[in-house]
Amino acid sequence: MQKIVILGSTGSIGKNALNIVRCFPDQFQVVGLAAQSNYALLERQVKAFRPSVASLADKSAAAILAKRLQGTGTEVLGGPEGVIETASLPAADRVISAIVGSAGLLPTLAAIYANKTVALANKETIVMAGELVMREAKSRNVAVLPVDSEHSALFQLLENRKSHEIKRVILTASGGPLLRLSEQKKKTISQKEALAHPTWKMGPKISIDSATLMNKGFEMIEARWFFDLPESQIDVVIHPQSIVHSFVEFVDRSLIAQMGFPDMRIPIAYAMFHPHRESLPFKLPDLTAFPSLTFEPPKPKSFPLLTIAREALQTGGTMPAVLNRANESAVAAFLEKRIGFLDIHKIIRKVLDAYSPSPINTVDDVLLADRWAGLKTERCIQTVSRK
Amino acid sequence: MQKIVILGSTGSIGKNALNIVRCFPDQFQVVGLAAQSNYALLERQVKAFRPSVASLADKSAAAILAKRLQGTGTEVLGGPEGVIETASLPAADRVISAIVGSAGLLPTLAAIYANKTVALANKETIVMAGELVMREAKSRNVAVLPVDSEHSALFQLLENRKSHEIKRVILTASGGPLLRLSEQKKKTISQKEALAHPTWKMGPKISIDSATLMNKGFEMIEARWFFDLPESQIDVVIHPQSIVHSFVEFVDRSLIAQMGFPDMRIPIAYAMFHPHRESLPFKLPDLTAFPSLTFEPPKPKSFPLLTIAREALQTGGTMPAVLNRANESAVAAFLEKRIGFLDIHKIIRKVLDAYSPSPINTVDDVLLADRWAGLKTERCIQTVSRK
Repeated sequence: MQKIVILGSTGSIGKNALNIVRCFPDQFQVVGLAAQSNYALLERQVKAFRPSVASLADKSAAAILAKRLQGTGTEVLGGPEGVIETASLPAADRVISAIVGSAGLLPTLAAIYANKTVALANKETIVMAGELVMREAKSRNVAVLPVDSEHSALFQLLENRKSHEIKRVILTASGGPLLRLSEQKKKTISQKEALAHPTWKMGPKISIDSATLMNKGFEMIEARWFFDLPESQIDVVIHPQSIVHSFVEFVDRSLIAQMGFPDMRIPIAYAMFHPHRESLPFKLPDLTAFPSLTFEPPKPKSFPLLTIAREALQTGGTMPAVLNRANESAVAAFLEKRIGFLDIHKIIRKVLDAYSPSPINTVDDVLLADRWAGLKTERCIQTVSRK
Repeated sequence: MQKIVILGSTGSIGKNALNIVRCFPDQFQVVGLAAQSNYALLERQVKAFRPSVASLADKSAAAILAKRLQGTGTEVLGGPEGVIETASLPAADRVISAIVGSAGLLPTLAAIYANKTVALANKETIVMAGELVMREAKSRNVAVLPVDSEHSALFQLLENRKSHEIKRVILTASGGPLLRLSEQKKKTISQKEALAHPTWKMGPKISIDSATLMNKGFEMIEARWFFDLPESQIDVVIHPQSIVHSFVEFVDRSLIAQMGFPDMRIPIAYAMFHPHRESLPFKLPDLTAFPSLTFEPPKPKSFPLLTIAREALQTGGTMPAVLNRANESAVAAFLEKRIGFLDIHKIIRKVLDAYSPSPINTVDDVLLADRWAGLKTERCIQTVSRK
């Protein structure tokens, strides 16, 4: 029986993780749940899974939840510090870190410091502070398991492989809903059109990141730290069908790939059960139902954020943290209709050009860069949206 | 420096293996070469690679070769026993077994008995006597490494995997040149049309086996023994582009695949260098040049030999050896224009129906079955061709 905490239990990954718990009641016990502010759903989850602790980062939402859960035996914590406490619950063996955005960083680090196995879906943690996170995990012999499909694919492919025999890893990108759109049309694209991801059903922020390929840029940075690979060994290929989740190419040019219909439950379950695999009770079509699979190189002109992400990875230090925050703020501004789609990458470029990166010694270096980038990006957004 | 023997050095696999030796002169020394009867090419190979022994199964060809190689320091052996002696040369570390057809069985067994690592391209050896060959190899702790692309793929994918986590392996089949042809048209297909394999350049016998999918039937039998998998865990999918060389499906429905442009040099090199991988100096296109990849289930009506092969595998014992010989004789008769294309599977079915299989205790059980099947098939061929 594994005792688990789910951070971000009301989000897409969190709900899927709870579905897996539901399928394997003998193998998992939920001891903690945390979310941002969705007290109504968290209440239902608490009543179904009876964790000892539930927390909401939003303090007023937490107060409502506390009232509703009176007498249930579940302790309710509020505020970011409550989420951090949930991440480091002494009873937990494994923490599923699935908070969206940079709010996931401190709880994830807390789980590592508390020696929990971490199933990490919060990519911002690795993008902002991959170097630090993996250093801390390594020194504690804590496993950090990727949850998103591409890194789960690479993790499955690279296990027990000799690193000197790896030529490169190749992340697949669907190309998003705007793959075949002209730059002219992208200028006036609506929020709804940019959110219409062709193959994966995901939250709004990551859907926009897929349309800009920023998501793939982040995944290059993640691959750097998850697999300790130099930037030069990390490539991206456009694969609109999202069936191949990533490739590994060996020095002899042999390629191996991990594949399957796009279904997040599989990589989530993999990270929950690792180092075992369980037979999953989900109905999935056979591979003979795959669509025709195609692969093409990404055009740098269509996806400037992919180039920007590679540059930030090359620069290193606190630069990826600035990239992450600039993107998070710019995407939010786009979703709030304050800026246009093509403003996203222009604003990010402006923020990065204005920044002088420093090495990451402690998490404060990351948080400082994050804060600087938040302020700077907001100023850039205001300049653009005032036009 | 690895000392190698190549059995079947004048064939397609043998020539490619010598090309790899040519690329890595510091890593391989050829100590023995063997072929069927092509003394002219073997003479050139001997002069280029200077092995201590060269042999030809055809005695009169060996006599010519011996004359031509007088004074070169290379000893020439003739007859099947000469080939067997070459396979067990004391100086050799690794034997590449690439003789076509059932003639490969005894030399391969000789190499195993002499404790050589065997890179096995001769599929008839495993089809006829896989149970025996792998038993003998295991008891001597001798590695038998697959050379053909599908099993090399599975070998690469299955290394270090837990067998209870494997749901099934899926061999890919191009479907051959007759994939879209009606049964009516197959009746009168010419030798040339049946030989026109769409993706792999191979010898005539294996090209016909690809057109009938007998080759894939054999590969199911090989997978049974190479990877110690039950028949129920071995499937076949039609993949006309031959880019995915095989799949492994895990119990959690995660699929992994080995891929690449069809180029036999890669699996040959893999089996020659194993357990290492070497950076190969061959120019190969990037994966973005892959054609669209498609997968479909094989239609049993179009490929009766696939069903027959599965039945032979289920029956076990000496039945696969009979299948192998019946096919070898029937394909030869087709290539000699004695029978039509659709007679191949009808004759094989007749031969198998007439046979009572027995367990394999020694190689003699296999050879007896082989001999019986040869005679029986010839009688069936005569009946058909007299019509």
